[in-house]
Amino acid sequence: MKIALYQGPGKINDIEAAWAHLAERAACAKTGGADLLVLPEMYLSGYNIGAEAARSAALVQTGLAPARRIAEANSIALVFGYPELVGEQVANAAALIGPDGTLLLNYRKTHLFGALDRDMFKAIGQEFAVAELHGHKIGLLICYDIEFPEPARALALAGADLLLIPTAQMQPYTQVARHLIPTRAYENQLYIAYANHSGSDDGLDYVGLSSICGPDGAVLAAAGLGEELIYATLDKPHHAKVRETDPLLRDRRPELYASLIR
Amino acid sequence: MKIALYQGPGKINDIEAAWAHLAERAACAKTGGADLLVLPEMYLSGYNIGAEAARSAALVQTGLAPARRIAEANSIALVFGYPELVGEQVANAAALIGPDGTLLLNYRKTHLFGALDRDMFKAIGQEFAVAELHGHKIGLLICYDIEFPEPARALALAGADLLLIPTAQMQPYTQVARHLIPTRAYENQLYIAYANHSGSDDGLDYVGLSSICGPDGAVLAAAGLGEELIYATLDKPHHAKVRETDPLLRDRRPELYASLIR
Repeated sequence: MKIALYQGPGKINDIEAAWAHLAERAACAKTGGADLLVLPEMYLSGYNIGAEAARSAALVQTGLAPARRIAEANSIALVFGYPELVGEQVANAAALIGPDGTLLLNYRKTHLFGALDRDMFKAIGQEFAVAELHGHKIGLLICYDIEFPEPARALALAGADLLLIPTAQMQPYTQVARHLIPTRAYENQLYIAYANHSGSDDGLDYVGLSSICGPDGAVLAAAGLGEELIYATLDKPHHAKVRETDPLLRDRRPELYASLIR
Repeated sequence: MKIALYQGPGKINDIEAAWAHLAERAACAKTGGADLLVLPEMYLSGYNIGAEAARSAALVQTGLAPARRIAEANSIALVFGYPELVGEQVANAAALIGPDGTLLLNYRKTHLFGALDRDMFKAIGQEFAVAELHGHKIGLLICYDIEFPEPARALALAGADLLLIPTAQMQPYTQVARHLIPTRAYENQLYIAYANHSGSDDGLDYVGLSSICGPDGAVLAAAGLGEELIYATLDKPHHAKVRETDPLLRDRRPELYASLIR
């Protein structure tokens, strides 16, 4: 499976423009040979939208249909962040849509980041689930979730071999992009695609530095500061060899970890 | 508190020479203003000693007394790795000795690394405990232990603000020194001193690259490939500010992490 990752500026509160942009990016990624396109956190609405989150969520609610049509028309899987209306609450969500337009997985951010997130969203998510695509088991996390080792670990233990992580990672946290993402890939022996925004968004300066990392922690593709479409191809035999050579998952001693869930 | 970290080649099976070397390193670190000297895994015997581990452990058994005398004579705390005889078994252990010569903490490696470790040691260790020194709460881990996020997390949850990690980290795992150590410091918001061997040891090529990292993931001091004594000073007000500004430990959601202990 070949992954394309789009890093770019967010579209603020212009859902119609976002659908058009998504169609264009999907076609471009497909031309590049990608089977799957990963886009940033809250891609459809922009991340830093404050009180507009509820209105955007209402606009999107009836609207994952356009994304499903774009996926099917281009025969490409899509992962993107969006504001999801759940009852009267808004979740910071990410959807995985298959190349036939099926919604394969929907994830709601479980770890909210400060007042920024909490003013817009509720942490409605309760589980770390995986979905199958092209023979891979995929888990979704969003931005701040990955800074905690536990969610990625839970997905690895649930069988994930690939984590797709829409993010809106801003200054001064370059540490996360440069060191933490390769470490999560290494310690859980899985692929990670970490798709960030670039540029500024109403006072937030995004760090860019999106990447696709391999199960040995190698950085397979990395973006700089601006708009980019980067690619990496997953290598199943290499992945199997990494897991056979380095038994990091098998050598865990869960009987010693009880304090982590208290 | 000022930490000195010694990176250097192991002494293989020459315990008397190791005591003399330890006395010299302790005096040198004290001259450099250090309150604590951290040395590599199995420092007293060398790491890659195979069937000699039991004999070395028997030699060391009666012998932490020399280390306690060295600590007291130089008024400096010491952390070093050594083979510990426990009944008829040998543990890969690390001791923290206070500046008055008191044994403050003894840790036995819980995660054994492949046939190398398993041919020499039993994983007798069962807990992640902390000890106080100069107003800091210190946890010990050894080498491979830190590659799993859980042991460091358990120590952070037990109140540790400083992890001291004797290691014997060899090629090709530079990933650990370069990315994983700063990530463990960042995600647990604590200081880490990671003290490695340099050079080669009967077919193992150590990567050097020892470091002392801060609670924001910053690399405060880093060694290259050879013998070095590096220093860093802990900054309590900065540490408190990091934990106040970034609530990474408070934002955990342990109710979602149940699968990690199964």
